[in-house]
Amino acid sequence: GPKWIIKREIARWFVMAMIGIITGLIASVIDVAVEYTSDLKFTYVKHYVDKCAEHYCLLIPFAAWAGFNAMIVMVGAVLTAVFEPVAAGSGIPQIKCFLNGVKIPHVVRVKTLVIKVIGVVSAVAGGLAVGKEGPMIHSGAVVAAGISQGRSSTFRFDLNLFEYFRTDTEKRDFVSGGAAAGVSAAFGAPVGGVLFSLEEGASFWNQALTWRIFFASMLSTVTLNIVASCRNGKCLDLSSPGLFNFGRFDTTSYNSVEILLFITMGVIGGLLGALFNHINYKLTIFRNRYIHYKFLRVVEAMIVAMISGVVSFLVIFIHNDCQPMRAEPTSYPVQFFCPDGQYSSTADLFFQTPEEGAKHLFHDTEGTYGVVTLVLYCIVFFFLACWTYGLSIPSGLFIPSLLVGAAWGRLFGQCLQLMFPNAVWLDSGKYALIGAAAQLGGIVRMTISLTVIIIEATGNITFGLPVMVVLMVAKWIGDLFNEGIYDMHIHLQGVPLLGWEPPLLSSEISTRKVMSHPVTVMRTQEKVGRIVEILKSESHNGFPVVQDYDPDHSNDSGVQTFGTFRGVILRSQLIVLLKLKVFQESPDYQEKLSNLKATDFRDAYPRFPPIQQIHVSPHEHEFTVDLLPFMNPGAYTIQDGASLHRIFRLFRALGLRHVVVVNEKNQVLGMVTRKDLARYKSSVSLSKGKIVIKELGVTR
Amino acid sequence: GPKWIIKREIARWFVMAMIGIITGLIASVIDVAVEYTSDLKFTYVKHYVDKCAEHYCLLIPFAAWAGFNAMIVMVGAVLTAVFEPVAAGSGIPQIKCFLNGVKIPHVVRVKTLVIKVIGVVSAVAGGLAVGKEGPMIHSGAVVAAGISQGRSSTFRFDLNLFEYFRTDTEKRDFVSGGAAAGVSAAFGAPVGGVLFSLEEGASFWNQALTWRIFFASMLSTVTLNIVASCRNGKCLDLSSPGLFNFGRFDTTSYNSVEILLFITMGVIGGLLGALFNHINYKLTIFRNRYIHYKFLRVVEAMIVAMISGVVSFLVIFIHNDCQPMRAEPTSYPVQFFCPDGQYSSTADLFFQTPEEGAKHLFHDTEGTYGVVTLVLYCIVFFFLACWTYGLSIPSGLFIPSLLVGAAWGRLFGQCLQLMFPNAVWLDSGKYALIGAAAQLGGIVRMTISLTVIIIEATGNITFGLPVMVVLMVAKWIGDLFNEGIYDMHIHLQGVPLLGWEPPLLSSEISTRKVMSHPVTVMRTQEKVGRIVEILKSESHNGFPVVQDYDPDHSNDSGVQTFGTFRGVILRSQLIVLLKLKVFQESPDYQEKLSNLKATDFRDAYPRFPPIQQIHVSPHEHEFTVDLLPFMNPGAYTIQDGASLHRIFRLFRALGLRHVVVVNEKNQVLGMVTRKDLARYKSSVSLSKGKIVIKELGVTR
Repeated sequence: GPKWIIKREIARWFVMAMIGIITGLIASVIDVAVEYTSDLKFTYVKHYVDKCAEHYCLLIPFAAWAGFNAMIVMVGAVLTAVFEPVAAGSGIPQIKCFLNGVKIPHVVRVKTLVIKVIGVVSAVAGGLAVGKEGPMIHSGAVVAAGISQGRSSTFRFDLNLFEYFRTDTEKRDFVSGGAAAGVSAAFGAPVGGVLFSLEEGASFWNQALTWRIFFASMLSTVTLNIVASCRNGKCLDLSSPGLFNFGRFDTTSYNSVEILLFITMGVIGGLLGALFNHINYKLTIFRNRYIHYKFLRVVEAMIVAMISGVVSFLVIFIHNDCQPMRAEPTSYPVQFFCPDGQYSSTADLFFQTPEEGAKHLFHDTEGTYGVVTLVLYCIVFFFLACWTYGLSIPSGLFIPSLLVGAAWGRLFGQCLQLMFPNAVWLDSGKYALIGAAAQLGGIVRMTISLTVIIIEATGNITFGLPVMVVLMVAKWIGDLFNEGIYDMHIHLQGVPLLGWEPPLLSSEISTRKVMSHPVTVMRTQEKVGRIVEILKSESHNGFPVVQDYDPDHSNDSGVQTFGTFRGVILRSQLIVLLKLKVFQESPDYQEKLSNLKATDFRDAYPRFPPIQQIHVSPHEHEFTVDLLPFMNPGAYTIQDGASLHRIFRLFRALGLRHVVVVNEKNQVLGMVTRKDLARYKSSVSLSKGKIVIKELGVTR
Repeated sequence: GPKWIIKREIARWFVMAMIGIITGLIASVIDVAVEYTSDLKFTYVKHYVDKCAEHYCLLIPFAAWAGFNAMIVMVGAVLTAVFEPVAAGSGIPQIKCFLNGVKIPHVVRVKTLVIKVIGVVSAVAGGLAVGKEGPMIHSGAVVAAGISQGRSSTFRFDLNLFEYFRTDTEKRDFVSGGAAAGVSAAFGAPVGGVLFSLEEGASFWNQALTWRIFFASMLSTVTLNIVASCRNGKCLDLSSPGLFNFGRFDTTSYNSVEILLFITMGVIGGLLGALFNHINYKLTIFRNRYIHYKFLRVVEAMIVAMISGVVSFLVIFIHNDCQPMRAEPTSYPVQFFCPDGQYSSTADLFFQTPEEGAKHLFHDTEGTYGVVTLVLYCIVFFFLACWTYGLSIPSGLFIPSLLVGAAWGRLFGQCLQLMFPNAVWLDSGKYALIGAAAQLGGIVRMTISLTVIIIEATGNITFGLPVMVVLMVAKWIGDLFNEGIYDMHIHLQGVPLLGWEPPLLSSEISTRKVMSHPVTVMRTQEKVGRIVEILKSESHNGFPVVQDYDPDHSNDSGVQTFGTFRGVILRSQLIVLLKLKVFQESPDYQEKLSNLKATDFRDAYPRFPPIQQIHVSPHEHEFTVDLLPFMNPGAYTIQDGASLHRIFRLFRALGLRHVVVVNEKNQVLGMVTRKDLARYKSSVSLSKGKIVIKELGVTR
């Protein structure tokens, strides 16, 4: 009724508001925890360093640093490896799959959230080359899934709230909002958050949904703002911006000629990004093959943490770039081997949380860093970041990429200054920003959402075009070599993710070639025994329901068709029907039929019991189930004459998981699933002047 | 081949770049022309006013003002009424229809563009209550359509460029980019432009396309920036922002308590917006009924222009709000009846281009305007704007709405100051901004794109949440009474536009009820005579091709089905086949068949000759055409068991225009077109506690 529809509409807004607020709060918690832990560590280590620089007892702070790192990282690594391996990494590939319609177990559980939060704090505080932004996005998604379903399987409670949201579509919509809120909280970029959700997930632009996503996204930034303002003692002021604001840029203009320089930087970013992805790809394959045991995974994370510490220390030790102490002190100015009144700018870069480091590279005055410092920093961080991504610990990739790019960008700017000493427009901080964008673009290959995130984080629309040009060039160059790192990890796991556009030349491939054939079908009146058997032997989620078909004689007559199509029945529906024993031969059949409600099918969502847990007696195997009242008679079908191109568009636009292929007499010929589609990838081979459509092996 | 695909890809980017740049240039031209013309007028009138205020000869400047207005407006009105009536208004409803897949003749012609540009300059300079933003958006769309097709039917030339873009889909994609570039140029809001395109048009989010649209959008802002910088003498600086920048807001924070005040303002905006739309609705119906003749239309526009002048003058005369002359002079301070050293702030508001007026309301210091001044200004402008929208002259609605809202918003702020004299956070400029957003939201009912446009125009993300809340409330309140003004005008023209979401309860309506039945079908081998006859008597764009059907016996046997579905053939294809005489009985049939290329079908796009121009001899009427090689065999069909909800999603997601309804044996039952779908609208009636699905009369 109308009341119910209005109630649902209000509930949708309410849930989105809660998602935004809670995501903002979680982001604040992560932020405060990282700040507090890092503060503790840096104060402690600084104490020893200051004391020892004079007495040449560097082994003590050295050991303290490395040991601290390893210990803190161990907490996160153990939690991740033992309790929830899916919490490792940034979580963006998993969210991307979820929004694309592919389910990965445990991704949106509360347990995952808890481990993600603790883990990312330990990773950042432990001195790994990671950021907290990716995990925040994942956290937002978990919050969204949890709140919208009104229950948690980790805590085994069910509020019986929002039952009407217990469908895949509704859940996915809310998770889009959660991811957007996460981005918004991480970068202070509410619009960027919405675009991120759209770019990574939603396939169909829906005005009302986008508006709600924006609401969650905006509330998340505001919540963060309120918390930050309160910590500054002015609760009602709402004057503090997002978490990772890139800081205010003084140079707000650029010269038209500089566009050429930016394009060059885009090329560099694309090349370095492709290299990064390639190394990480090889590393991931190595990890998948050799690092199976939980114990090994924890040890690997600890080793990386120690090495991160050791290498930083060595670099500072080897190359001591002394700079005069300035009026604006860095958070932890370390004197090291510098004369009094000076501090080590090398130490300054390494001796920071990564986010502070980025701000330093963007905004420090000219001449703060020597060329060698930047080269060393860039190289060290590049390899550390590459090694770190994929460890068994929550870890974001944004900030490390940004740092590497900012380092070589600043270097680029400083080199230009050496070449053109009279150019006043050369501001190395600006080049650091462009470099950061180029490197990030080369690694993740995002487009409009990344541009808007960077625009929002700099609070400056003037840099829009340069950032855009750089991201575009970096993506083009990078795409010549390999995929973006998220897609790469998704494909490494064999997930059938559909791209944005149908593969090139896909209009030349016919449905007949793509479809799975033969196909298992159900008759409108199906034997219980056969249903149980099929559910046990097949893993499909939906089955065509047909008329005029006898499975026992199909092979004899050699027909290729499987009866006339009537509708599609889902695995979950069949399981509920078996569980409730809605058999035509039951004495209380009519009663059961009339008592059956939509809630019977919905309550079990999303974890229907496996068929093995359904008990059906051998006697009942001879009974029949009438599928006609339950199947979906209006399911989308496709003619066998259609092309791959057309099926692809249908899947992508409507978010389908399977479609039944019929011939011109509406007889079932086969089925096309996401997996069938994801097999096809076109690759343009320029040298041979040909476009080839490859078939990939997609497992799972 | 691959070369062709790569060439097409490069061409796509190139065309988008050209669209952005040219749209930016056109916006600059409009801007400069308006500035120049207004300057001329204001200087001239000011001269007389200053002279006459002393000598009490007010009739002369009075006559000069009104006469000037009427003359300037006449130019635009005559051009619009006589040469291209579709150039009237803001053009946004027409663009919305175009992007939604509905063709309105002449909307994207070059002639329309020329008249739009001249017309909007004359409307703004002529003192009408209009803005130039809507027309700029329309201009961008025309530029896009023109460039992407590489030819113009106004100028009758064909560059034979970009022939591969001569399809509805490609053209629509480019027009999205053009509209985005227009928004971007009008408000300096590149991201807002992209979101506008998405919100108003594109139904399917496509990463690559959105990225290209963003490119056009960004280039348009940059072009404008370069032109503006050049006019300031610093060509390479790129430091001037977009055209209508709302100016820098000093108060960048708001108090949490103020949110409640903002919600109140949202309610006011919604109510005033609904009132505005209602009055304009009645007026439009009146106009449609009584003002037919071109002459009458021109006279009406001139009358409105004169009245605009007279009323402004009367208000200034009646209520002379004298303020001391300040350091920051307004562009044209008029002394009027004020003592020396003072100027009339009433005159200041009326004696400006609307855009300057808005900036004044946002940024003038406290106490610049008396309460009566604002009340008078708000009321006068409300009715003038309402009367003006719909005149036969290009006219944007954004700025007038903004001005009305800014006036009552500032008034709201000043009233609050009277009530709470001690509240330091009360800045009436801030309230003017919120009021402007509320009024705009109440009239146009846009959501995320409008929020982002306002954020970008103020350059301030802090106001994001207040603006969003206000727009949301204004939309909700307004939607209780009527539709947004653009949708209203679209429906007044009877265009079958599809909404975002299927009507409520649409899952209870079956395809059988929605579809057109009986339906005209073609046989796979069809007689030429029958084709000609059908094309002459029917106006459909596509026809199902079937097997096993005899049209002559259909009535006898009383069947409701029309043979087995094989594919769909388009009207345009049939016309080309008839024109080229591809008949099976022709002696050179095989030759014709092999010579037939895709270009034969594409060259005629988009204006295929009407069937009346195709000459087929009576002798040829007995020939047959084999439709099998030309029809689309993979066209989407829908089972008769599907619900309205499902068809709606299919149409919306894939941008379909028609779909064939088949039964379970794949026999054609009927067809569903956009018109059939647009008939259904649900209306929630709260008082009766029911949701009703209404059938609307959709014509054309």
